[in-house]
Amino acid sequence: MNQTGTLKVDSLAPSHSMPPNSESMKLNIMARIRPDLERIEAEINRLLTSSVPLISIVGRHIMSSGGKRLRPLLMILSARLCGYRGNHDASLAVVFEFLHAATLLHDDVVDHAEFRRNQPAANTIWGNPAVVLVGDFLYAKSILMTVGYSNVRILEVLMEATTRMAEGEVLQLVHKDNLEIDELEYLDVIDRKTAGLISAACQVGALLGGVEKEEEMALRDFGHHLGIAFQLIDDTLDYTGDVKELGKPVGNDVQEGKATLPLIFALRNGSAREKKRVMEIFSSERIPHGVFMELKELVTRSGGIEYTRRLATEHVEKAKAALALFPANGARQILEDIAEYVIHRRV
Amino acid sequence: MNQTGTLKVDSLAPSHSMPPNSESMKLNIMARIRPDLERIEAEINRLLTSSVPLISIVGRHIMSSGGKRLRPLLMILSARLCGYRGNHDASLAVVFEFLHAATLLHDDVVDHAEFRRNQPAANTIWGNPAVVLVGDFLYAKSILMTVGYSNVRILEVLMEATTRMAEGEVLQLVHKDNLEIDELEYLDVIDRKTAGLISAACQVGALLGGVEKEEEMALRDFGHHLGIAFQLIDDTLDYTGDVKELGKPVGNDVQEGKATLPLIFALRNGSAREKKRVMEIFSSERIPHGVFMELKELVTRSGGIEYTRRLATEHVEKAKAALALFPANGARQILEDIAEYVIHRRV
Repeated sequence: MNQTGTLKVDSLAPSHSMPPNSESMKLNIMARIRPDLERIEAEINRLLTSSVPLISIVGRHIMSSGGKRLRPLLMILSARLCGYRGNHDASLAVVFEFLHAATLLHDDVVDHAEFRRNQPAANTIWGNPAVVLVGDFLYAKSILMTVGYSNVRILEVLMEATTRMAEGEVLQLVHKDNLEIDELEYLDVIDRKTAGLISAACQVGALLGGVEKEEEMALRDFGHHLGIAFQLIDDTLDYTGDVKELGKPVGNDVQEGKATLPLIFALRNGSAREKKRVMEIFSSERIPHGVFMELKELVTRSGGIEYTRRLATEHVEKAKAALALFPANGARQILEDIAEYVIHRRV
Repeated sequence: MNQTGTLKVDSLAPSHSMPPNSESMKLNIMARIRPDLERIEAEINRLLTSSVPLISIVGRHIMSSGGKRLRPLLMILSARLCGYRGNHDASLAVVFEFLHAATLLHDDVVDHAEFRRNQPAANTIWGNPAVVLVGDFLYAKSILMTVGYSNVRILEVLMEATTRMAEGEVLQLVHKDNLEIDELEYLDVIDRKTAGLISAACQVGALLGGVEKEEEMALRDFGHHLGIAFQLIDDTLDYTGDVKELGKPVGNDVQEGKATLPLIFALRNGSAREKKRVMEIFSSERIPHGVFMELKELVTRSGGIEYTRRLATEHVEKAKAALALFPANGARQILEDIAEYVIHRRV
């Protein structure tokens, strides 16, 4: 494992003056995190082994489908911000990608997904049974990997997040086809389902750095707000995104019976006629493209997209504010830039 | 939590002279383990909570479907044999029942099971998505519960067993409809899938008792051999068992494309004509009751049932021998009696 990532990161100029252009933001961040991403990829390849070939095959499929490696990256950067200079960060970081991959595999079974990131979903290739069981393996393996660090506090944070995540997944299922869900209930679901693991990745980075409780909680908060913003932008992209860029059809959430914040807002704020039409469309068995475009128009006109983006922006501001107690170094700058990029990303 | 179990157990006379009658053996064991079983049930009820009602409902369904509580019981008895006198054993023991329940839920999805222990399988009531996700919750919750004991060695044993169990499940799936599987490969599958968690339960009991490595390994071996014997007898019961007692149809394994040891033996030792007929039946889409009875006759005539029972008996002898280095007290006697009962059980 090389440690050059640290030097390169700190030697790069900060990017305060960058215009909020999605592609240039991304390239700017990528230039600084490339060494870390390479270490993460190397560790994924090293650790994704099993004496059972099918596990490696399905594991590599889900791992190589263009994931952003957001969680391991946040853990590594958080550890660095907290002064960690050892060489165990990448292997511990991979735990978060394995756990995330396990939930993606089970999600695809739950949602009967056909595609993920421009590739056939694993369940369409190997069937539900294999995908459920390989997901179980990735859960178990990632926790076994963490046990190797003999740090009970890290295990506690990880398992609390994993347990809440499982509850969030069940909650989301319970709310399937439910148009009565309100904003607070919805935010609770995405807090458990998405923000929890991202928050845990940042907190574990802090624990690896061995900082005081205040810094640990600050990074936990950073991850929480970043995670909420990340999911809210995901929700808007399901309406406004580009099919090719997303690697899956837009309107996926409504097709799967998931009422996300843009739609919840439209149902709360549209006219009576608009609400009625939104409910009609949402409740229909299969939504043709043209009808989805009508729904998108209704949701947009209600202000649902704008509201969701504004809420996401507020969470990004809170995330950045949580970092204020850290010295303004390269690691902090990248974390802030990643938080900012979450709002401007198109994928 | 009461500790009277210990006293009652030690004050009961040993049962050396008992005849090998399934029902009387069971009653004799039950009389001595009742207090422990009651503590286990109380802990299951206490710990099976979640803020998400569906989780408690599905969890209670799988937990109340007549499980033997074999794993938690073995953990408690192993801890007692190793001198543990604290009051955390029942809550830690429940971890093994939760993990076991999680695998049962996922197994039912994988096998498209319709019944489990005379009740509709959870997936037939709540659907695959809910069952997959509640299984995930039980996995996460049970590991989180274990983290609470701050004992890294216990976590290591637990997670190694869980990871191997997931591999065993995938291996079993890979071997579905495979008549080429040989005895060694089959024993490897059941070692990972079944014996591993039972062995871990006994080893964790030893760790709770804080004994030397030699005793820890002896209990691990005891659990391993008991687990193999338990699964082998399960395999024979799928041919010879009573539908009403089992709570599921006989011939379940072959219907699900699982070649277990009795069948593997028949394919190795039957005449050419018998082998051909066994292969024909095993490979057919749906096996009517009459045809299964023909298969049962072929497998029995080949000596497959007898061979499997003999192998199971050998493993029970090895399990009992592993206990030889412990003092001959009440806890050891019950463990030996449970091992013996594994061979004679009819359910």
